[in-house]
Amino acid sequence: MKKLAILGSTGSIGQSTLSIVEQFPDRYSVTSVACGRNVDQAFAQAVRWRPKLISIATEELACRLSARLHQAGIAGIDVVHGTEGTVAVSTHAEADFVVSAIVGVAGLEATHAAILAGKPVGLANKECMVAAGEILTAAARQCNVPILPIDSEHNAVHQCLRVGAHKEVKAIWLTASGGPFRKTPLADFAAITPAQALKHPTWVMGRRITIDSATMLNKGLEIIEACRLFDVSPSQVRVIVHPQSTVHSLVEYVDGSILAQISVTDMCLPILYALAYPERPASTLTFDLAALRHLEFEEPDFERFPCLRLAFEAADKGGAHTIALNAADEIAVEAFLDGRIPFMGIPRTIEKVLASTVEAHPTTIGQVLAADREARQRANAFVDS
Amino acid sequence: MKKLAILGSTGSIGQSTLSIVEQFPDRYSVTSVACGRNVDQAFAQAVRWRPKLISIATEELACRLSARLHQAGIAGIDVVHGTEGTVAVSTHAEADFVVSAIVGVAGLEATHAAILAGKPVGLANKECMVAAGEILTAAARQCNVPILPIDSEHNAVHQCLRVGAHKEVKAIWLTASGGPFRKTPLADFAAITPAQALKHPTWVMGRRITIDSATMLNKGLEIIEACRLFDVSPSQVRVIVHPQSTVHSLVEYVDGSILAQISVTDMCLPILYALAYPERPASTLTFDLAALRHLEFEEPDFERFPCLRLAFEAADKGGAHTIALNAADEIAVEAFLDGRIPFMGIPRTIEKVLASTVEAHPTTIGQVLAADREARQRANAFVDS
Repeated sequence: MKKLAILGSTGSIGQSTLSIVEQFPDRYSVTSVACGRNVDQAFAQAVRWRPKLISIATEELACRLSARLHQAGIAGIDVVHGTEGTVAVSTHAEADFVVSAIVGVAGLEATHAAILAGKPVGLANKECMVAAGEILTAAARQCNVPILPIDSEHNAVHQCLRVGAHKEVKAIWLTASGGPFRKTPLADFAAITPAQALKHPTWVMGRRITIDSATMLNKGLEIIEACRLFDVSPSQVRVIVHPQSTVHSLVEYVDGSILAQISVTDMCLPILYALAYPERPASTLTFDLAALRHLEFEEPDFERFPCLRLAFEAADKGGAHTIALNAADEIAVEAFLDGRIPFMGIPRTIEKVLASTVEAHPTTIGQVLAADREARQRANAFVDS
Repeated sequence: MKKLAILGSTGSIGQSTLSIVEQFPDRYSVTSVACGRNVDQAFAQAVRWRPKLISIATEELACRLSARLHQAGIAGIDVVHGTEGTVAVSTHAEADFVVSAIVGVAGLEATHAAILAGKPVGLANKECMVAAGEILTAAARQCNVPILPIDSEHNAVHQCLRVGAHKEVKAIWLTASGGPFRKTPLADFAAITPAQALKHPTWVMGRRITIDSATMLNKGLEIIEACRLFDVSPSQVRVIVHPQSTVHSLVEYVDGSILAQISVTDMCLPILYALAYPERPASTLTFDLAALRHLEFEEPDFERFPCLRLAFEAADKGGAHTIALNAADEIAVEAFLDGRIPFMGIPRTIEKVLASTVEAHPTTIGQVLAADREARQRANAFVDS
């Protein structure tokens, strides 16, 4: 029985994780959960899963949740809050495995603390690796803790990497849907509206990640994540556009063999893989290979998608530059969605912020968060100028 | 330094193996070779590779080869002949690895002897596994000897199987080019000529294997081979038509993940994989992923390709039935190429021979060869009737 700590239990990945616990009650149980601001859902999860510890965003919400648990006659669940609460959830003494699925840098400290506490981590949070990957992977190596990627691309890479040794890897190929503007002429990019950019061809996702997919900055973040998760240089990571999103990524070996992972586009698959690794439990997530019919691949267009180039540049410099890339993009996407900057203003903002970033390699989470705040300020200043 | 015994050194796989030894002189050397009837080529290989032992088809050829070596002042190479000679090559005391690439059942005894002598085998000979797979795999298990497949499909499967445990395998998907008649209407199959059937769309191969590819019996033999090499039931093996022959095969796991292997269509790749396993040396066999562009997949048509159904039936029964399938096909293909039977006479001959085969499971190579001869007699009788 593997006891789970789930950071972001009321989010999409958190809920999918709980659906897997539901399917495999003999394999998994829930020890602790950290959720956001939704007291109703937190209460429902407490009733259903009976964790020993729940963390919620604020003291006031914690108070309301405690009261509801008390009224319902449910005892034995500690309720905590804030960053300290999230850290308590991720380092709970009984937890065997931590699912890190809080969006943004909010999950950073708890993920770091989990690694230092020797807990294997299933990582669904992209920003953790982009902002603090150097720190997290160093801690993971030091504590001999596995970090298992919970996203379709890196999970696919993790699988394909089992077919050879690290030194035998020539390149990691991340597939990209190409987003809604894969075939849009460059001349039309200036007029792209938020409504157009929010229509993703294959995946339904949050607003920022959907825009990141339209600019391909999302794939840029994954390039950086791949470098850190798999200890490869940016020159070993490639992006290939694959509109069907069926091949989730590929690994090319020095002997000329390329391994690819194919599956349904359902996040339960990478979550189950991470939870069960190195085992593979039987699931209902079958894929009809005969239905593949037709797969397309093409090189990404770096002119239409300058965010890809910017991500490679940030990946080369590492540290403060990858923090700045992520921070500047978040600010720029908000500004685009608010109608304050045009679509191509997103890469322009990132480029400006990167250009004014001083090379540095934070060694503590505090330094990472400070660099993140500072980059956001510069991004905001540029957006407002 | 791995010392190789090469059975079939003057054939296509044998020559490719030698080209790999040439590329990796620090990794591989040649200890012994068995060739067919080409004295000139055998002599050239002796001069170039200086093996300690050469076997050639007949006593007379052995005599001629010895004389030439003597005239050339080359000493220290023993020349032997026949089946005994081939066995001496495959069991040479100094050999660390045996490449089994003699076409047909001629390589069977030597391959079996190599396994019993504890030598790891790289197997390029399909008939060995089809005719005597039960005996060979039992011997390999007993002697704890790996058999590494040297053909693009099973080599791909071998790679994809490294990503999970045996009990986690749901299905093995063998890709098939579909041959030249993939889109030919069923009504036109009766009139297919040998010249049409000998034109293969993607691979240049020998005559029998080209016809086997046109009837898809080739894929049928691979189904049987997969069952034996990877210890799976016929119901776990599927065939999928993939005209580009770029994905060499796939493995589907019980959790829903499918792993695929992609590479150039060059036999040097599976040979190098088998020789170096579990390592992957750097090779020049690169594949441009961006050039993939477009991959197609479709279900095979069992009505147009009855040989597939016959192979599954033979695989289910095993033993004498798989021997009969292979033997009957070889006779039928000869008869088709000679203009004695029509194209669809090939599956008809196989079906007849299978129907008159008594279920049996030979336990010695002698029994296998006897069953093979007997099935050929029945096939010849049917073809001539």
